[in-house]
Amino acid sequence: MSKSGTKKRLGSDYGSEEAKKKIKAPSEVLAHVKQLAKIALSEPEIERTLLELELEHDCREVIDKDADAVMDEVESAIYQSAVSILKGEGFSFAVPSRSKGNQLYVPELDRIVLKNSTSQRHFSNSATCRKAVITARVLGLIHELCIKRIHVTKRDLFYTDVKLFEDQTNSDGTLDDVACMLGCTRSSLHVVASEKGVVVGRLRFKEDGDQIDCQRMGIGGKAIPPNVDKVVDIESDAHFILLVEKDAAFMRLAEDRFYNTYPCIILTAKGQPDVATRLFLRNLKLTLKIPVLALVDSDPYGLKILSVYMKGSMNMSYDSSNLTTPDVKWLGVRPSDLDRFNIPQQCRLPMTEEDIKTGKKLMEEDFIKANPEWVKELEIMVTTKVKAEIQALSSFGFQYLSQVYLPLKLQEGDWI
Amino acid sequence: MSKSGTKKRLGSDYGSEEAKKKIKAPSEVLAHVKQLAKIALSEPEIERTLLELELEHDCREVIDKDADAVMDEVESAIYQSAVSILKGEGFSFAVPSRSKGNQLYVPELDRIVLKNSTSQRHFSNSATCRKAVITARVLGLIHELCIKRIHVTKRDLFYTDVKLFEDQTNSDGTLDDVACMLGCTRSSLHVVASEKGVVVGRLRFKEDGDQIDCQRMGIGGKAIPPNVDKVVDIESDAHFILLVEKDAAFMRLAEDRFYNTYPCIILTAKGQPDVATRLFLRNLKLTLKIPVLALVDSDPYGLKILSVYMKGSMNMSYDSSNLTTPDVKWLGVRPSDLDRFNIPQQCRLPMTEEDIKTGKKLMEEDFIKANPEWVKELEIMVTTKVKAEIQALSSFGFQYLSQVYLPLKLQEGDWI
Repeated sequence: MSKSGTKKRLGSDYGSEEAKKKIKAPSEVLAHVKQLAKIALSEPEIERTLLELELEHDCREVIDKDADAVMDEVESAIYQSAVSILKGEGFSFAVPSRSKGNQLYVPELDRIVLKNSTSQRHFSNSATCRKAVITARVLGLIHELCIKRIHVTKRDLFYTDVKLFEDQTNSDGTLDDVACMLGCTRSSLHVVASEKGVVVGRLRFKEDGDQIDCQRMGIGGKAIPPNVDKVVDIESDAHFILLVEKDAAFMRLAEDRFYNTYPCIILTAKGQPDVATRLFLRNLKLTLKIPVLALVDSDPYGLKILSVYMKGSMNMSYDSSNLTTPDVKWLGVRPSDLDRFNIPQQCRLPMTEEDIKTGKKLMEEDFIKANPEWVKELEIMVTTKVKAEIQALSSFGFQYLSQVYLPLKLQEGDWI
Repeated sequence: MSKSGTKKRLGSDYGSEEAKKKIKAPSEVLAHVKQLAKIALSEPEIERTLLELELEHDCREVIDKDADAVMDEVESAIYQSAVSILKGEGFSFAVPSRSKGNQLYVPELDRIVLKNSTSQRHFSNSATCRKAVITARVLGLIHELCIKRIHVTKRDLFYTDVKLFEDQTNSDGTLDDVACMLGCTRSSLHVVASEKGVVVGRLRFKEDGDQIDCQRMGIGGKAIPPNVDKVVDIESDAHFILLVEKDAAFMRLAEDRFYNTYPCIILTAKGQPDVATRLFLRNLKLTLKIPVLALVDSDPYGLKILSVYMKGSMNMSYDSSNLTTPDVKWLGVRPSDLDRFNIPQQCRLPMTEEDIKTGKKLMEEDFIKANPEWVKELEIMVTTKVKAEIQALSSFGFQYLSQVYLPLKLQEGDWI
């Protein structure tokens, strides 16, 4: 009907109908993925700890702890304070410094840990009195959450004592202090962020006692819970996890039941990933030991999102390795795909100055540099100065993504 | 531990411990709700249609149509064009005007319909040629979606022919035109928005063939699907639907399994409601005929959100009655609750100038004026000039919301 002939485009190498013919039976399509999965499975688990390394610095790391362990830590912190009072040294807390100067990158662990610098919060000192009280209050609240086994948001925590906290930045900051004091991750403290992610596909687990089957979750999928510690008994016959940047692509794959033909788990955080989705992905990867393939926009922002999944965000660097999934493969949409799949010129968007700057900055980052193929793709992006969204694939038909693009990519083992 | 004694607050009339004692057995708590439900059930269904009214204007309304009906309408539109060509009058479409001037409020239906003003899009006229082509293309795409029984986003639609559409505003606008042409709602066209909402509680339904039990959805809940037409066989033993503004409150109620003690369905769109959540709520209400009680922040924004559920947003007014749930009761947090429940002064926030202006503007709106009790509450809000979030209830303890506030509200039948 329109003058911009879709017909012509169909004639291209990877246009819809011709390309569809290239797709083999699902088991053959999945051959490369299965090989990748085998490698992932055979890799020895090298979860080295700080202790084993015998570093010259006295270091501390934060790890996931369960409610009982956190309660023990709180009680021990209060005990320390009591000892200090009895000694005649007054009521105070020793709080580790979270500043850049007290952070140390440990290459052997590929993570940031905190050095041993701490500051004392004395109740008797007018400069630290308020902070000491706030710390005590937060410790008490965390203890209560652990006893009751319930989860709340930062905002809830703030509202329990607005008169004392005055501003939410005070309770939020102290919460991070307390996590470092107790040597546990922020999520161990039972204070969670709001949920954004959804999951669908070949996955079963128990959530707070309920048996969840993500293969029978219709099109909307299952909302990823904010409190990932209530997710247990993870089971799956999937060959890979498909990490999707955007809601629209997730919807397409869910409605087409992509996971029925190609056994996989499909996951999205709808843009910038939240803590719960990152934890959930990490959990899946550690438990199932299957490859994670990412489908993001072909732009610097898509890569930024990948980097958050893989490396975490900068402002909680010492906590980030507990949230990350290092080994994510970049399946698409990659800058080189645009020509390979003959994405029409008018579906490609010019990059802004800001985009190009972000792209160049990304090329400097260690986790990109570690993978020459990623660098090559980024180079294509910043030299051609074009970007494209996942939806650009719709120019070959609405179901091109699920019926042609992804099967071809999988069949060719085309990830980097 | 803190100096701001929670102890003192507990002594107040509705403080945690004393208030808890007032709460009777669940069946007694629910007595008022059951009465409300009985009224809702006994109300005759008055779904009057335009035809019955015999208006002096020739009017058209948009209604939900299934895929087959939409296909029929598309084919009939194309048939009309063919007839016009054969008559020698050329290829053109008659597109209803969506402008304010062509809208008519029909009090008998309490909804806005379109009057009979249409404009012709001639292919042979240079001013309308492009629009005619775009309209034909969109009609073709909608037809394809209906045949394949799949749903896509507006963005997907745009990308199918970027060369023709040039800008997404063109395909979006034409989509609304086509909905009016075909006399159906936008959601009938199989073009959906992304999903935001989640649901948990006493609800079972079939989604695209999968049996979903929202009582076994852990804490995260079930994501509300973008394509609500795939939700069928809705069943429930709930006494009411609890519409929650915010994610944090939803999480509290879901984790505490509030619906086990007080049989209900808990729903949130996490802020400003999206189309899918509004459709889903409307669907539940029409099918189950149980009361909808709303829990929103005590501020003008909370009421704005209620108004979107109840009255729809202004820019799709002729389509809005297909998305709305008129009869929502305002349970809390209401301005009068702040004193009644002794919400500590420091948990109340001063309203900004903008807030007060919005509040006063709301008081002018018909759906507020229709309910004197709502006006009274709004008057309290704008005279005291304070607002409060749902989370302010956390000042009495994290579970005050689920264990005290809501049960008391229900027990007293305290909604308006």
